[in-house]
Amino acid sequence: MSNNYRVEYELSDDDENIHHKWDNSIEPVLTVEPGEVVRFECRDALDGQLTPDSTADDFENVSFDPVHPLTGPVAIDGAEPGDVLAVEFLDFEHKGWGYTGYMPGEMGYGLLPEEFEDGGLYVWDLGDDVAHFVNDIEVPLNLFPGIGGVAPKTPGAHNTLPPRDTGGNMDLTYLTAGSTLYLPVEVAGALFSTGDCHAAQGDGEVCVTGIEAPMFVTARFDVLKDKSIAQPELETSGSTTHTNPADPAYGTTGIADSLMTAMKRAVSHMISHLEAERDLTRGEAYILCSAALSLKISEVVGAPNWTVTAYLPDSIFPE
Amino acid sequence: MSNNYRVEYELSDDDENIHHKWDNSIEPVLTVEPGEVVRFECRDALDGQLTPDSTADDFENVSFDPVHPLTGPVAIDGAEPGDVLAVEFLDFEHKGWGYTGYMPGEMGYGLLPEEFEDGGLYVWDLGDDVAHFVNDIEVPLNLFPGIGGVAPKTPGAHNTLPPRDTGGNMDLTYLTAGSTLYLPVEVAGALFSTGDCHAAQGDGEVCVTGIEAPMFVTARFDVLKDKSIAQPELETSGSTTHTNPADPAYGTTGIADSLMTAMKRAVSHMISHLEAERDLTRGEAYILCSAALSLKISEVVGAPNWTVTAYLPDSIFPE
Repeated sequence: MSNNYRVEYELSDDDENIHHKWDNSIEPVLTVEPGEVVRFECRDALDGQLTPDSTADDFENVSFDPVHPLTGPVAIDGAEPGDVLAVEFLDFEHKGWGYTGYMPGEMGYGLLPEEFEDGGLYVWDLGDDVAHFVNDIEVPLNLFPGIGGVAPKTPGAHNTLPPRDTGGNMDLTYLTAGSTLYLPVEVAGALFSTGDCHAAQGDGEVCVTGIEAPMFVTARFDVLKDKSIAQPELETSGSTTHTNPADPAYGTTGIADSLMTAMKRAVSHMISHLEAERDLTRGEAYILCSAALSLKISEVVGAPNWTVTAYLPDSIFPE
Repeated sequence: MSNNYRVEYELSDDDENIHHKWDNSIEPVLTVEPGEVVRFECRDALDGQLTPDSTADDFENVSFDPVHPLTGPVAIDGAEPGDVLAVEFLDFEHKGWGYTGYMPGEMGYGLLPEEFEDGGLYVWDLGDDVAHFVNDIEVPLNLFPGIGGVAPKTPGAHNTLPPRDTGGNMDLTYLTAGSTLYLPVEVAGALFSTGDCHAAQGDGEVCVTGIEAPMFVTARFDVLKDKSIAQPELETSGSTTHTNPADPAYGTTGIADSLMTAMKRAVSHMISHLEAERDLTRGEAYILCSAALSLKISEVVGAPNWTVTAYLPDSIFPE
């Protein structure tokens, strides 16, 4: 990464720069040359329906129709199907607040809907380095875009929720400033868009939201003709603060004969641990996991059972 | 952790201290009081069938019948069903060598049997801090026991391959010196055993072996009457060297509608990356992944597709 860059283009989050589906027929709002830098203003995932004063009731009544507002698409001159688009993330800037919420279980969202009858919402005050939670817990900020992707070759309007071969909603917590995302180009110009920014996020985004935050994303583009990939890849900068293994941590295992069940158990056990040892309600614990948990695949060759582990660093709790 | 400890008991890896199944009818080889320290000599996972001079042919002809030789069981005085056994790992000491191998695909072992027609073996020279691989690649040592567990309440002899509620083959790479493993006690005395030690291991142990190494394991026991857990938990020391996110890393995503498929793709893409960019054969790359890969669950709420990411730190490669 070079810290020596100049922003050539600014894209505001006005309606004319926002779209809500992956669709290669959407006209680019901007065309850039390889090497040029764009600063994207990105709306939060719920497209402005919540404010810093919102409550759990407000969250339960939001519409999911506008999820996710994406800023773009940007065409990169010379990008052709089969090429790789390199997106170097140079800087992220939040707007001072964010939120994490979960829906009532009957709606089926999140990893553990069966454990949560009611929904919940927490609005975070974002400082320079940490996000403040209940009980003096401080989650280190780890700004990254939940969504970065290019237009798929398949015609039509595609939902932004599932990640795809062309990227999208991958929630890569390591995609911090200084990292580079590589995306397989499927259409001329690549047509890159980004959004769904997180001020921090636990692996898996288990309660269905990270720390959702409106944000500015600054990125530089390059087109690689001699690289070929089937799905997105990335080069991290090492600047992530996400659940550093150099910190002591508490871990819970989930052991089961499906990876999904193993993961659910690991997260559910961590929620029980936080309830028993850290004086959190199960709802608060669910939100904290969605914002800060590390989820590792520990063992996948001991058939018929697999092991997933969930870790939270001790350093986020007051001494 | 206290570094100030005295080893009260030594258990050699002689036949009388080794068993090969989880079975609560096996008589303890030793009974200790809470607070006492035991040094276990552990055989490698294949029970001595390989030596530092072994070849891929030798590996393909091993018998899996003796997998895994475990040292123990040790009874802890006062442990009763419903209690939690705390096992504080104080020290690990390897014997200078280890191995990582994969079997011909038709045998069905490992994460990617369909990609590997032939088997392969690599014998590692273990230094103080690193294990030496081809192309001057150095994998940081990260000594831990692949298996630590207590006897299950269900009578009979149980295979050591799958992890269980009582622990066993969990392959927790964070279980380094200074960490504490918590195990739910199901029978009087708990009956703890350990083995399958790894000098380092990638998450998932994807080719079916970590850096398998005979080793000494020193641990202190405690019985917790006021803690209750459903599956194993752990407190890490932060001393792990495993794939530190503070190092820049290269990552590959796997995106699919099952977690297992997503993980297979992430690993397969990393193998392709190592083949293209690091001048490794696919077999060497598979072995390196099994020894050093970090596997993270990035996204599990963007139905119907999930994202798993695989990372290898740049620091293991020569400059």
